[in-house]
Order: sequence, then structure tokens, then C-alpha cells
Amino acid sequence: MRVLHYKLDLETTKNQEVIDVTGKIEGWLREVKAKNGILIVYSPHTTTGIIINENEPGLKSDVLSFLSELTKPGASWKHNLVDANAHAHLANVIVGGERVIPVVNGRLALGTWQRVMFIEMDGPRFRSLFVTYIGECGD
Amino acid sequence: MRVLHYKLDLETTKNQEVIDVTGKIEGWLREVKAKNGILIVYSPHTTTGIIINENEPGLKSDVLSFLSELTKPGASWKHNLVDANAHAHLANVIVGGERVIPVVNGRLALGTWQRVMFIEMDGPRFRSLFVTYIGECGD
Amino acid sequence: MRVLHYKLDLETTKNQEVIDVTGKIEGWLREVKAKNGILIVYSPHTTTGIIINENEPGLKSDVLSFLSELTKPGASWKHNLVDANAHAHLANVIVGGERVIPVVNGRLALGTWQRVMFIEMDGPRFRSLFVTYIGECGD
Repeated sequence: MRVLHYKLDLETTKNQEVIDVTGKIEGWLREVKAKNGILIVYSPHTTTGIIINENEPGLKSDVLSFLSELTKPGASWKHNLVDANAHAHLANVIVGGERVIPVVNGRLALGTWQRVMFIEMDGPRFRSLFVTYIGECGD
Repeated sequence: MRVLHYKLDLETTKNQEVIDVTGKIEGWLREVKAKNGILIVYSPHTTTGIIINENEPGLKSDVLSFLSELTKPGASWKHNLVDANAHAHLANVIVGGERVIPVVNGRLALGTWQRVMFIEMDGPRFRSLFVTYIGECGD
Repeated sequence: MRVLHYKLDLETTKNQEVIDVTGKIEGWLREVKAKNGILIVYSPHTTTGIIINENEPGLKSDVLSFLSELTKPGASWKHNLVDANAHAHLANVIVGGERVIPVVNGRLALGTWQRVMFIEMDGPRFRSLFVTYIGECGD
């Protein structure tokens, strides 16, 4: 049983954006010869989120519209007196900034339509995710 | 320390439904003689969610109404041009499709009123959950 | 590789409140000489949540206002016929009652602005969190 960490760097290019990071994570799992365990994808940022859903362009746009509708950018949130991004913090509160996924025989247990996606809600910025695998490794 | 996986099959019978899966998970933990560790309940579907809350009929109905109010089935989401279930994807984004629970002396660390419940938001369908235990096992 | 549990007791003093528990968790990690692994912060209550965000007074107030706006305390939720706190249960459904954080060289992998915070939504009450570390320990 091992614990392995991986820092996944991203450069977002828009104020709000949904970015598929599945390929990078799967590549790293192959590299470390993961077998059975669990994987944590963790964002150390307060204005971002991680979702596991379908990578369909219309849906990715809907997710951003939906979060904006709920969190109301520009409304009179108190945090906007400090920094004009309360909406992005509030979106993090309901989306969550980490996901945990079983790893079965070296593969993420993703369903047919599932992809791991990073949500930028206050970009563009340089962002880093922590990816941690805990489990068995092959040789 | 071991990693054990369990596939929990479900057949939902309604378009939207909340189903208590606690008993099946606890039964499996007893079977594998789990002791101290953590358990992940993971849904590989993009239009479902997992919650840990009270199994009270009124509340289960409220949860479905609440998610519908927020995600607006039938609204002009772009994903509805592909498949008329954007609301169910959006509910997954805010509910989350997995939960992680400590296992203490072989038992889920659930509070008095907590039950692990699957939320179907685009049924009825056959669904499968991945349940992973990582921790110590007795003999 | 070890599994260690810690019960973190809290006494909330208001009906709704956001409480930073980062210091207590970090103190415990030092005490048990955690090295590399993961940490689960789990609330066994159905009317609370755990978030990882910025401990800024305006934002903490915004988070409570935001959740109230979405979950409508006093609305005609069915669960209010049983107990007048449906809104607090519904907030738990979208916030989530647990968070999972990588532990890197004995430290939580928190970003610059991140703090682990407990959200009381139906207090004041005595509350307990389960904190579980799974990973390597030093000597």
C-alpha cells in the first residue's frame, strides 16, 4: 500500500471555464503503476470547483450559467467589499473543491459519460491541483 | 491494510427517487470483516447523486422538489438540445456523486439520523454504485 | 500505513454559524506524527456542512445568507411538519457534510486562503466531527 502525490498545473484562459483533466490523471496513474485504491483530486483554491460529469460543450456552458444564476456575480455580497469575487467563493461552497474516485485495476472507476473536470470561476489564472493516490501499486 | 471493491446494483422505478442504500453497504462491511478505515460510495452516473441525510418521507420529497426548483427541468439549457436532462446533470454538479465515510470498528460513522441515500434524477434506469473500503480487516 | 480517528467536539452558540476548525485538525496531525496520506473531516449531523474556503468575516456571512436564499427557511417544505428545519437539511444536501484533503509531509494540502470550516445551520447545539487520517506516520 502506497501514498503518492502529483501536482497538476493548469493555466486557465478565461474568467469562467470548465477544463477536462481526466487524461492527465489517467496518464499519471499508469506511470505509477496504480492497481487498486482511491484517488483524490483536490483544488487548493477557494474560487474553483471539481466536478465529474459529461464533457459536452452545451452542458459545460450550462454549468457556468447555472452557477452564475445561483451565486449572482455583482450582487451586494459583503465579500465584494474586499474582493469582487464572492460569487466564485459561493459556487465553490456548493460545488466542492475535491472529488474522490475508486481506482480499480489501475483505472479510475468512471462511468461511460464521466470526465473529471476543473471549474475556473475567477480566472484567468495559474492554478495547481493536488492529486493523491492511496492504494496498491504493481511492479 | 486492504482495498476492497463492491458493486451495488440498483433498479430505480421512477424518474426521480431517493433510495436508502445503507443496509446493503453495512451488510457488505460485515461480510468483509472491516475494522478501521474509510468507505467511498461512488456513483459512475452523471445524472444521479449521493447524499447522507435523514430518511424521512417528507424530506426525501423536499430534496427532489428543491433540486428541481434550482435546476429547472425544461428550461432552455443548451444540453437539452442533445438530451432533455440538463437539470439532472446540474443537480449532480451541486449534490455530488460520491461520499466518503469513516469506518470505526467495522461500522460506518453515521450519526443518529444519517442514512446513505442514492438520488435518481433521470430514471427509471438500471444503476450501479461502486463501493470501496480501504483499511484494516479482522479475521 | 495507519488509520487514526479523532473526535472533534464543538459547541455552537448561534442558530447559524461558520466555525474554523483548521487549527484543531492540524494540531492533531502533528500529535500523531502524520506524514503522507489523506484526511477526512466528517460531520455525523444532518443539518450541518463542511466547507474549505476563506475565513473572511464578510464571506462567512455571505455563505449563510446564500444558503438561506436557496433553501428558504419557513417555506412550506413537507419536512417542516415533522421538524421546522427542512432548510438546514437541504443546505447539507448541496454543501456536503464531509471533505477529504491530501496530507503532504504532515501538513494539510490547503492553499493560501483555504481554511476548513464547519457550518452550523440548526443550532445552537453540541456537535462532534469525526476526523480520520489514513496514511504513513513518522516516529
